[in-house]
Amino acid sequence: MKYEDSGVSIDKAQAIKKDIARNIKSTWGPQVLSEVGNFGGLFKLGSYRDPVLVSSVDGVGTKLLVAKMAHRHDTVGQDLVNHCVNDILVQGAKPLFFLDYIAAGSLDPRIVADIIRGLAAACGENGCALIAGETAEMPGVYKPDDLDLAGCIVGVVEAGSIVDGGRIVPGDRVYALPSTGLHTNGYSLARKVFFDLLAWSVDTYVQEFGCTAGEELLKVHRSYLHDMTALMKTVDVKGMAHITGGGLLDNLPRILPPSCDAVVRRGSWPVQPVFRILQEEGEVEEREMYHTFNMGLGMVFICSASDGAKVMEGKAGAFHIGEIQSGRNEVVLA
Amino acid sequence: MKYEDSGVSIDKAQAIKKDIARNIKSTWGPQVLSEVGNFGGLFKLGSYRDPVLVSSVDGVGTKLLVAKMAHRHDTVGQDLVNHCVNDILVQGAKPLFFLDYIAAGSLDPRIVADIIRGLAAACGENGCALIAGETAEMPGVYKPDDLDLAGCIVGVVEAGSIVDGGRIVPGDRVYALPSTGLHTNGYSLARKVFFDLLAWSVDTYVQEFGCTAGEELLKVHRSYLHDMTALMKTVDVKGMAHITGGGLLDNLPRILPPSCDAVVRRGSWPVQPVFRILQEEGEVEEREMYHTFNMGLGMVFICSASDGAKVMEGKAGAFHIGEIQSGRNEVVLA
Repeated sequence: MKYEDSGVSIDKAQAIKKDIARNIKSTWGPQVLSEVGNFGGLFKLGSYRDPVLVSSVDGVGTKLLVAKMAHRHDTVGQDLVNHCVNDILVQGAKPLFFLDYIAAGSLDPRIVADIIRGLAAACGENGCALIAGETAEMPGVYKPDDLDLAGCIVGVVEAGSIVDGGRIVPGDRVYALPSTGLHTNGYSLARKVFFDLLAWSVDTYVQEFGCTAGEELLKVHRSYLHDMTALMKTVDVKGMAHITGGGLLDNLPRILPPSCDAVVRRGSWPVQPVFRILQEEGEVEEREMYHTFNMGLGMVFICSASDGAKVMEGKAGAFHIGEIQSGRNEVVLA
Repeated sequence: MKYEDSGVSIDKAQAIKKDIARNIKSTWGPQVLSEVGNFGGLFKLGSYRDPVLVSSVDGVGTKLLVAKMAHRHDTVGQDLVNHCVNDILVQGAKPLFFLDYIAAGSLDPRIVADIIRGLAAACGENGCALIAGETAEMPGVYKPDDLDLAGCIVGVVEAGSIVDGGRIVPGDRVYALPSTGLHTNGYSLARKVFFDLLAWSVDTYVQEFGCTAGEELLKVHRSYLHDMTALMKTVDVKGMAHITGGGLLDNLPRILPPSCDAVVRRGSWPVQPVFRILQEEGEVEEREMYHTFNMGLGMVFICSASDGAKVMEGKAGAFHIGEIQSGRNEVVLA
């Protein structure tokens, strides 16, 4: 009996590893000291006064199933990196390096290569080294064509520059940057509405979207790194919230002081058609929509009213969506 | 339609998060600046001259299926942490923090709590903060009772103290520390032999093991952090290899200079009965055994012959298993 007989091909794993190596090396600068094949990735931190490492781990959820239906796996790679970048950005950190985990019942080298291409592209755009990864072939844990993808990011911020919302006070303003669509949340519900209830396929052209259902649902989760970094050069950003699972209602309170509410005015930003169709066709209550989807806003941030003009003059295209008032750590939809 | 209707319970996810919070906080020292619920984990690095961050990502493979058969999930949590600790230890790094990813079709709060308890226990033993995690419920990607577990570790080493095998020369000695059993590799083959071919269950008592098949296969992957750290205080360790997937034959060459071979003498260390039974009952060729399993050795390291006495006097219980000679980056089984 050879190891292949039990469903694991070490040679196939080796071939995939070579392809991965080419892509990930394209994201490496002089700070990466390791070679592909080392036991761990080595990253030279460089000079900081009082460095705080900021890390996060995430998956892309059931957006993977849309990728599978559409036979397209590069965008979920980009989604994962950008999601992680945003999760550490909201604490003021810039990304240093990223590690990926790809697991499947049987690794399809073409799919793995697609994912890695997406990961590497997004890492490149965010100035982040794709430093290490694990591809695991697990017959028995996954069915042959099932696949999961997760990743971990590590960034750095000077201790004195951590952004944590602690300085937010009543009277501050709430701003937001638009999402590209669903990003990576609410896909179980969206798939149910579009593919079960409406019986669409990924190839169904949807007039309101101006593209197919698959294209709409695979729109890449946006990274806010460059826009927020540019804004923070001129504006004192007191808090940032990445709007992911749980929507505005769960994510914005994470950065609010206990005695502050955020009043958010519906109608102060454009909500993409995909959310309206999900709400109407799925007969989802509005509060549930705001608890499940980003509703068009991927990044929310808080500044003093005195910084308002500078925020609106910025190139990021921010919306002024509300105000901070005394309260008890809640989002009030007005 | 509520989000629960599509198979995802946000309330259940919240309950699990609270339980996780208690366990992970037990691993936090003053370097952890974040709270549970922050977007990212914050870790204050402290004072280093020229810090190099060493990171690794891994899963536990199909050992998960044995855990599932035995209804015991804490040990796979320990396996994962210890595996990752060893992967950065071999480059000279000490662990700082760990992030976990748990994904399932339907999250069983009891199983998640078991895994986290194991992760937290091992993090505690290795002086590593379990700083963040993601639990993902993905109906459609996983069947209801299917589960995967992956993790990512970040450690640090001074640039001048990186261990990379570069100073290994012919005449150096090869030492090894024993494994506790299969660790986390070769489980697809082992399950096939024990549970299909021999038709054992996890509860089958096996005389040669002195325990049940389940207990043998769930023995915890050993962390070599404390033993190797102690050894390195008195001995110049030139290279270390963590013996994982690919066995001695693939892992030892990863640290050998291109012009060096490692001659490893079979019989110079005890091989546990589990490997002999796998070889005999599975009719696996010996070279394949060495290519799939650790064969009783979890950590191999290289020192000068002049350090030999100090290695053998150490408390770690090292075996002298071979020598370095001129060659071409291969392991020669003698």
